[in-house]
Amino acid sequence: MKMLEKRILDDGRALDENTLLVDSFLNHQVDMVLMREIGKAFAKHFRASQITKIVTVESSGIAPAGMTALTLNVPLVIMKKLASRVVDGQYYQVNVQSFTKKTQYELSVLKKYLKEGERVLLIDDFLAMGEAAIGVSRIMNEAKCELAGIGIVIEKTFQPGRSRLDDLGFDVFSLARIAEMAPGHIRFM
Amino acid sequence: MKMLEKRILDDGRALDENTLLVDSFLNHQVDMVLMREIGKAFAKHFRASQITKIVTVESSGIAPAGMTALTLNVPLVIMKKLASRVVDGQYYQVNVQSFTKKTQYELSVLKKYLKEGERVLLIDDFLAMGEAAIGVSRIMNEAKCELAGIGIVIEKTFQPGRSRLDDLGFDVFSLARIAEMAPGHIRFM
Repeated sequence: MKMLEKRILDDGRALDENTLLVDSFLNHQVDMVLMREIGKAFAKHFRASQITKIVTVESSGIAPAGMTALTLNVPLVIMKKLASRVVDGQYYQVNVQSFTKKTQYELSVLKKYLKEGERVLLIDDFLAMGEAAIGVSRIMNEAKCELAGIGIVIEKTFQPGRSRLDDLGFDVFSLARIAEMAPGHIRFM
Repeated sequence: MKMLEKRILDDGRALDENTLLVDSFLNHQVDMVLMREIGKAFAKHFRASQITKIVTVESSGIAPAGMTALTLNVPLVIMKKLASRVVDGQYYQVNVQSFTKKTQYELSVLKKYLKEGERVLLIDDFLAMGEAAIGVSRIMNEAKCELAGIGIVIEKTFQPGRSRLDDLGFDVFSLARIAEMAPGHIRFM
């Protein structure tokens, strides 16, 4: 997506080979006009996939996921990052280890918002190691839903997430694919 | 806002006199078409207020705040709830005690996204005790920004937040104002 790549070059900042700051337009300050165009791009790619629901993981994915849900006219479900397990059985939960942030959390969603047979599209802001997406896919298995697509705003292709998700057979569509970066330098695929 | 009040009556659930569940359309599963109409309603009310930026507190306010930002064509800034203080001076931070959830957090925003003289509109999903809004107003004072308006999706008028914000002289506009509730019963102002 040219508009997004240009914005990353203009306003993003590579801190080192692995860390990209995009907090001026994506995950702290948010440009909603850009998010609307991102939503349209995801909707165009996945329109034939008969999506019944969008899911995202709080909180940086909510803006692009919401605009995709609006364009496809389906509900958005925001999965929560809870610190501990809920014991009352109302939730699907899987433990996710975030190597990037060196944290872990219980990825959680109320069972009633994932009905058997739903075709779910996951939208997330970044793909690096793929931990969150694999956590979502495990919940979809448990809920007997189909993870029909994964839409990523910014993919770091040099980290293992993309190939892990490809190996699992998912339809992964990334709007900006970074091949390599360093301070002052960002190159796309 | 009639569309919102009807949705609260149809799909909301009062657990007791103080607790309203709206997780089927506002803060877990999200109806983005409703969020778009909510954004339009906030934009209409605050259009004359010369707003330069929307702020919200992660994460339930992001969807309605984002749609308001899109309608008014201004940036959205998502304030973070951090567990501890950041020591490097890049952030404005205030400690917020949430009586509703019995938690506390450091409401945090990068200083560079609040420039002196900005006219800021806070959008949040609920108004109960008003702790988050008062925290935001303290940050605006520190940043020499004007908190030019507060837009609330659902106000519990019987809790102290509304009168605290009125006493401080803020322009508070709520789309649904609940006068009283109990299991099976919700009455609007």
